Amino acid sequence: MLGDTISAVSTPRGKGGVAILRISGPQALSVAEKVFLPAGAHPLAATPRTARLGSMLAPVSSHTGWSAVDRGLALFFPGPGSFTGEDVVELHCHGGPLLTETLLSATFAAGARPAAAGEFTRRAFLNGKLSLTEAESLGMLIDAQTESQLSAASSGLARDNPLGKSLSALYERLTLLLSTAYARIDYPDEDLAELSDEEVLNSLSGLLGDLDRLLETYRTGHAVMEGIPCVLCGRTNAGKSSIYNRLAGSDKAIVTDIPGTTRDILECSVSVGEVLLKLRDTAGLRSSDGSDAVEQIGIRRALKALDEAELILTVVDLSRPLDDEDRMVFAAVRAACDRNPNTRALLVSNKSDLHPQKDLAPIWTALGRELPSLAVSAKTGEGFDQLTAFIRSLYIDEGVSLSSDPLLMNARQRACIVGAMEALTRAQTSLSAGYTFDLVSADLEEALESLGETDGRTVNEDIVASIFSHFCVGK
Amino acid sequence: MLGDTISAVSTPRGKGGVAILRISGPQALSVAEKVFLPAGAHPLAATPRTARLGSMLAPVSSHTGWSAVDRGLALFFPGPGSFTGEDVVELHCHGGPLLTETLLSATFAAGARPAAAGEFTRRAFLNGKLSLTEAESLGMLIDAQTESQLSAASSGLARDNPLGKSLSALYERLTLLLSTAYARIDYPDEDLAELSDEEVLNSLSGLLGDLDRLLETYRTGHAVMEGIPCVLCGRTNAGKSSIYNRLAGSDKAIVTDIPGTTRDILECSVSVGEVLLKLRDTAGLRSSDGSDAVEQIGIRRALKALDEAELILTVVDLSRPLDDEDRMVFAAVRAACDRNPNTRALLVSNKSDLHPQKDLAPIWTALGRELPSLAVSAKTGEGFDQLTAFIRSLYIDEGVSLSSDPLLMNARQRACIVGAMEALTRAQTSLSAGYTFDLVSADLEEALESLGETDGRTVNEDIVASIFSHFCVGK
Repeated sequence: MLGDTISAVSTPRGKGGVAILRISGPQALSVAEKVFLPAGAHPLAATPRTARLGSMLAPVSSHTGWSAVDRGLALFFPGPGSFTGEDVVELHCHGGPLLTETLLSATFAAGARPAAAGEFTRRAFLNGKLSLTEAESLGMLIDAQTESQLSAASSGLARDNPLGKSLSALYERLTLLLSTAYARIDYPDEDLAELSDEEVLNSLSGLLGDLDRLLETYRTGHAVMEGIPCVLCGRTNAGKSSIYNRLAGSDKAIVTDIPGTTRDILECSVSVGEVLLKLRDTAGLRSSDGSDAVEQIGIRRALKALDEAELILTVVDLSRPLDDEDRMVFAAVRAACDRNPNTRALLVSNKSDLHPQKDLAPIWTALGRELPSLAVSAKTGEGFDQLTAFIRSLYIDEGVSLSSDPLLMNARQRACIVGAMEALTRAQTSLSAGYTFDLVSADLEEALESLGETDGRTVNEDIVASIFSHFCVGK
Repeated sequence: MLGDTISAVSTPRGKGGVAILRISGPQALSVAEKVFLPAGAHPLAATPRTARLGSMLAPVSSHTGWSAVDRGLALFFPGPGSFTGEDVVELHCHGGPLLTETLLSATFAAGARPAAAGEFTRRAFLNGKLSLTEAESLGMLIDAQTESQLSAASSGLARDNPLGKSLSALYERLTLLLSTAYARIDYPDEDLAELSDEEVLNSLSGLLGDLDRLLETYRTGHAVMEGIPCVLCGRTNAGKSSIYNRLAGSDKAIVTDIPGTTRDILECSVSVGEVLLKLRDTAGLRSSDGSDAVEQIGIRRALKALDEAELILTVVDLSRPLDDEDRMVFAAVRAACDRNPNTRALLVSNKSDLHPQKDLAPIWTALGRELPSLAVSAKTGEGFDQLTAFIRSLYIDEGVSLSSDPLLMNARQRACIVGAMEALTRAQTSLSAGYTFDLVSADLEEALESLGETDGRTVNEDIVASIFSHFCVGK
C-alpha cells in the first residue's frame, strides 16, 4: 500500500490561474522526470524544495509520443521532510481543467496511480507526520464555514496543539500507572517502592477528573464544529419564517442552503454566537379540516424533524388566542422532548411588538412543562440579542478558549475518551473491591488503547480508513 | 498603477487540499512578512525560490491582534525573474474557502490591494515577460475544452513559439522597409545604395503574400479555438435531435451544455475532428394550422439562430415526401444564406437506413440552390464519418500543424493582420502610382503599428485592458 506512488490534483476543481499536481511515494522523482523537463542543467533531484521552471510533458493522442503542453514550476520535497513523509514532487501548471486532467493522466502513464480521497494526509499520518486529531483539524480547516470553526481548527493543527499536548500528558500518566500494575504482577512480593493501592486510586480518580474535564469540552466542540440540529416549529403564521430569516441574516452568516430532504423543510447553517445552528424551518401544522392523508404526512415530517433536533424553538404568536393548531404543535414538542431527554426546547413568543407580555400558564398547561421563554419581534429585531445569548449559553462554555484550550471536536474523539473513562471506572471499582492487579491491568490496558485511539497512537485501521475517506482527493 | 502591490487567490475557487495566494509588486515581501512567519532563522527574502514552511497569520475578529490560522509554505520569487517581472510571493495554504478568504483579507490588511481579473498576466505583459499572443495562448490554455485547443494553446505559449517568431520576422522586414523610406525622405538626392522603387514594391508584395498566408491560418484557428456556430434545422421528426445526440456523443466530446437563450434552442460544444462546433438544435418549424402568434415566435427564433450560424445542417427525412414544413425550413435556410454569403449550408438526408438514395432535384428547386449533400442514419451511425470529414475539410487546413505552425487564433489577431495588409496595399498602390515617399511612409508606419499590435509590441492600452479583463482573477 505504502510502497507505491500516488498522484492527484491538490487544488480545487475548476478554472484558475494555477493548479498543483502532487506526486508522493518512492517513485515520485522518476514519475516527475517523465512529466517535467526542467530548464537549466541540474536535475530536479539536485535542487530540493526549490521552484524549478520547465516544460510539462504529456502524451497528446493526436501526436506520436509526448510533447510539451505547458510551462510551469516543479518542486521536489525529499522524504522524510515532506508533508507525507515520502518523496513528494509538486507540479505547478496553469489552472485549466483539461490541461490539469491531461497532466494528471501523464503522471499515471509515467507510473503513478490515482490517489484515493485523503490518501496524502493518510500517508502523512501513517508516517508519523501528524496525529489523527491534527488530521481531523486539517479536514475541518478546509471545511470551516465559520470563524469559530476556523479558529478551533487552526488551534488543533498548530505545533504543540493544546489537545495533542493534553492527550500526551494523559497517556503518559496512564502508562505510568499501567507499568506500576505490571510491576506488581511480575514481582508481587517485592517492595518496589511503587505506588500504594491508595495512591493508584488517587491517580485513577485524578485521571478520571481530567478526562471528564476534557469530555466536557465536547459540549462546546460539538456546537462549534459539528453544529446543533435546530428546528423552528409553530402554527401557520406564527412567524417561523420571519424568525428563520432574521436568524439567518442576523450576522450575515448564512453559510449554506441545503435543499431539505422534503420540499416542506428548509435548512440552512447559521452562526449564532460561536454556535453553528443547523436550522430547519418546518411547515406549519395544519388544522384537521383538510385532507387527513396530507395532514398525516405533514405531521410525520414535522415529528421526524423534531426527533432529529437537539434544540427546538417553539414559536407562538401571543397577539392572538391559542388555538388547536398551537395545541397540535405543543403536543408534538412534548412528544419529542419525552422521547429525547437531551433535546432542549425554548418558547419563542413572536410579534412582541404587537402584544404586551402575556400569561404563559395556558401554554405550560398545553405543553405539560415550562420552557425557558423569550419574547422577540422578527419584524423589529427586538429580543434577538437575548435569543442569541441564550442559545450561546446553552452550548458554549465561557471557560473554553477555542484558540488555546484542548477541545474535543467530534463524536469519534468523544467516544474514545468515554471508552477510556469507562475502562478506568471499572479499574477503580475493581481495585476498591480488592480484585487482583491482573484484572485491573486489563482495564488499564483497555483505557490506554481507547485513549490512544483519540490521536491515533494506537491505530485501528478501520477507523483510520473511515476518517480519511471523508477528505477530498488531492489532500 | 504598476507601483502598487496586488494579491489574489490564484487557484480555482472551492475546496481542495491546497490553495495559492499570489502577491506581486514592490511591497510583496513586506506584505508577506506580515502574513507569513517562517520557521527557521532566515527571513523569506534570504531564500529566493525556496519553499519555506511557516505559519500563516490573519486578524481573526474574535481575537485581539493577528494569530496563526494555518501552517503552510511560502516562496519568494524576486523580480525580474518572476512570472510578473516584479517581486512575487506565493503563499500555499490549505484549500478551505473561508481560510483562503481570511488569508486574502490579511494580505489586504498588510498593504496589498485586490488584483483585477488578469492583472498578474497583464503586469507580466507590461514588464515584457510575455507577448500579447502568448498571453492569449495562456488564457486559451486555461479555457481549453478540446485536445486541439490544448495543443495550439501550448504551442502558442512555448519559448520561440511559431506565431511570435513569424510576427517578429515580419516586423523586422517591415521596419527595414520603413527605414529605407525614411532615408529617401531625409536624403532624397543621395544615392544611398538603398532599395530601388522596384525592390521596395517587391518587398511589399512579398510581405503581403506572407501576411496573407498567415491570415489564411485564421480559418483553422477560428474553427479550432473560437469554434463554428452551427445550427441543425429541419421539420419536426426529421431526426435533428438524434443527429445532435450522435454528433455530441460521437467521440464523447460533449464539452459544455449551455442553456439556450430561449427554451427551444439547445446548445452544446462538440469537437468534430479538430473543429469545435457550437451546435444548436432548433425546434422544428410547425405547420401553419397552429396559433399564428406562437408560430411567428418559433420562426423568428429559428431565423435568428440561422442568421448567427456559420454552418447550417439542413436535415430532411427522405423516407417520406417533402411537405410544407420542409419547404418552410428551406425558405428559412435560403434567406439566411442570402443574407450571409459566408454562411455554409449542407443538406443532411437522415434515415438513410429507411430509404434508398432519392432524387434531390425537388429539394434544390425548393431551396433555390444546390448544397453539398450527405446521407446519414442517426440510428445506425452510417454516414457520420463522412459528415465529420466534410465539416473538417471546410475549416481545417491540412497544411497547418497546430503544434508547430504559426496560427492566428482569434478575431483580434486577425484584425491586426488585416489592418497591416490594408495599409501595405495602400502603400503599394501609392508607390506604383508614383506618389512621394512621405505618403508611402505614413502607410508603412500604420502597417507597422497594426502588425505590432498583434503581439503587443505597439501597445494600445484599451486593447490590453480588454484582453486581460477576460482572464480570471488570480491569473
